[in-house]
Amino acid sequence: MQTLFRYNWQVRQDWFSWCEDVPLEELLRVRTGGIGGILHTLFHIVDVEWSWIRLLQGKPDFQESFEEYQSLAQVRKLDTLFREEVEKFVLSWDESMEDLILYDPQPDGSIATDTWGEVMRHILAHEIHHVGQLSIWAREVGKKPISANLIGRGLAQKG
Amino acid sequence: MQTLFRYNWQVRQDWFSWCEDVPLEELLRVRTGGIGGILHTLFHIVDVEWSWIRLLQGKPDFQESFEEYQSLAQVRKLDTLFREEVEKFVLSWDESMEDLILYDPQPDGSIATDTWGEVMRHILAHEIHHVGQLSIWAREVGKKPISANLIGRGLAQKG
Repeated sequence: MQTLFRYNWQVRQDWFSWCEDVPLEELLRVRTGGIGGILHTLFHIVDVEWSWIRLLQGKPDFQESFEEYQSLAQVRKLDTLFREEVEKFVLSWDESMEDLILYDPQPDGSIATDTWGEVMRHILAHEIHHVGQLSIWAREVGKKPISANLIGRGLAQKG
Repeated sequence: MQTLFRYNWQVRQDWFSWCEDVPLEELLRVRTGGIGGILHTLFHIVDVEWSWIRLLQGKPDFQESFEEYQSLAQVRKLDTLFREEVEKFVLSWDESMEDLILYDPQPDGSIATDTWGEVMRHILAHEIHHVGQLSIWAREVGKKPISANLIGRGLAQKG
């Protein structure tokens, strides 16, 4: 579980670095599919990861608006801000939390139930999925995407 | 671990069904980024998953060529064929296999070492990444992509 979170965080940093050489207008350009843009997707990944971790902890969430984060520096700053809490939660994860139930009120008034284990894997899959979208848009920009390889990143050491 | 494999298999079946309503020429059309096409990506996912599982077991691998699998039915058939062995391996996974070492000869003559745990997560991330690419191309075809949500799929029950 933690290996895949560390994979996501490492890949995310790689994408932030990748963005440094890309003009802001390309990062902001509205594109077909997904969240509709490169920087917007990175913002969305950061926001959604944090929001779920807050929800699991029973802490109040808030929806950040991308309108307020129209530069790479601002999205990176948000990532740094949220990471501390996310990392603390992820690194304190243990098996006993797997089957805890999250009661998640839906817009239609019903209440969805998910196990914490499902939610954690949902967060993981969510980021990898969106990063796959970035890899297509990278080619549209004419730039090689960040490798999605998990092996070769030295992720085995810390368990 | 197994939850994410079952997630991938379920999403993959959803994409196979999704393809049924899409003209073959759209499934075969060469696109920007990734493996370069919808059906080719599904073929690649099936091939790569099986190949790694074979490698872990020390069994001979072979590179299937997409040239031989130019229809949805053929890719599905390959998936069914490979799944039996993959599923057996995944469902027999236990913690003691995490730190086993795979020695993987590289094209340059060096030998990469990966833990089995890394390889298994590499397989998982590989598929989710490529499915993210499918979701962009789905919009290009003008069709809603398969949901990447992991929650709400009833995946918690089997551990």
